[in-house]
Amino acid sequence: MNVNCLLFNDFETLDLFGPVEVFGKIDECSIKYLSINGGNIINKDNVQIITENINRIEKYDVLLIPGGIGTRVLVNDNEFIGKLKYIVEKSTWCLTVCTGSALLAKTGLLDNYEATSNKMAFEWVKSTGENVKWKNRARWVVDKKYYTSSGVSAGIDMSLGFVSDRFGEEAAGKIAERIEHEWNNNKENDIFGV
Amino acid sequence: MNVNCLLFNDFETLDLFGPVEVFGKIDECSIKYLSINGGNIINKDNVQIITENINRIEKYDVLLIPGGIGTRVLVNDNEFIGKLKYIVEKSTWCLTVCTGSALLAKTGLLDNYEATSNKMAFEWVKSTGENVKWKNRARWVVDKKYYTSSGVSAGIDMSLGFVSDRFGEEAAGKIAERIEHEWNNNKENDIFGV
Repeated sequence: MNVNCLLFNDFETLDLFGPVEVFGKIDECSIKYLSINGGNIINKDNVQIITENINRIEKYDVLLIPGGIGTRVLVNDNEFIGKLKYIVEKSTWCLTVCTGSALLAKTGLLDNYEATSNKMAFEWVKSTGENVKWKNRARWVVDKKYYTSSGVSAGIDMSLGFVSDRFGEEAAGKIAERIEHEWNNNKENDIFGV
Repeated sequence: MNVNCLLFNDFETLDLFGPVEVFGKIDECSIKYLSINGGNIINKDNVQIITENINRIEKYDVLLIPGGIGTRVLVNDNEFIGKLKYIVEKSTWCLTVCTGSALLAKTGLLDNYEATSNKMAFEWVKSTGENVKWKNRARWVVDKKYYTSSGVSAGIDMSLGFVSDRFGEEAAGKIAERIEHEWNNNKENDIFGV
């Protein structure tokens, strides 16, 4: 199972590396770092990642879309959103963390689906997809192939939830224990809900 | 305040990027990625980071030492441990996550100090510093300039604790809320303790 992480400048650090930590514990998972044009991606924490062009995706299993301040520009970049739509449609599963759901919403593919996002940026996120059934209280939301999580740290809980749904609750619990993560395994339990 | 992250091959992804996520939210913090010889560092999650040589450290404020499978080799690398000892002594604060405390213990600087580590690797970690006062139940431990956390995810809680100690509890709480992290702010509360 390939986990294709779609990066862009000013992505949020933990939005990416929380899920990477979880998927890295699954033998069946191979983690790939991609961006629309390939090359070096950097964010405000001085994290630099060398990415491959999305044309190089070999297996469209899991697409992970982090959030971050970089999404504020990208929601208005029609070329980016068009290419994103293409790879989301081809992917078996699409997972977003934090404001990554704004990018997904902009493709139109979330229309009439349930989804969530970071509650501090919630009004802005809702404006990017007025036909999405936004949930204002959820650690993460699952609707068909779409997994959307609340802010940043919630991406870890959601990834463990995804692992639980695909590989069983025991497998997910073992990873949580191994990384000493106090897993909030109830996706309805959201203390940051509004 | 410079946060100098000491990397090595096969460091644990979240050990590094949990704390980076937290310190990145502090305007006063500048995050640096370093390694003993500089250059490209890679781990088993295919995370590649370009690092500077530790000779390039400009301000010895905070030294962050992640853990990971790479520590198993490095505890026996006398040249590495010698150089590590030098920069730990010069640093105002030294923070370790997970088995990063094994590297610190090997320098001898933790002798007679309280410390903790990942409970799954605890017996091995204890063997790397027999004069350390290891605590078998603690989310993280503070003893003078040393902050040592339990496994992986605990690094986020410890980093928020460090921010709380330096910049105030309100500042730490605001970061936790912003990244929607359900902060375990009681360092004695360790559900993974043995």
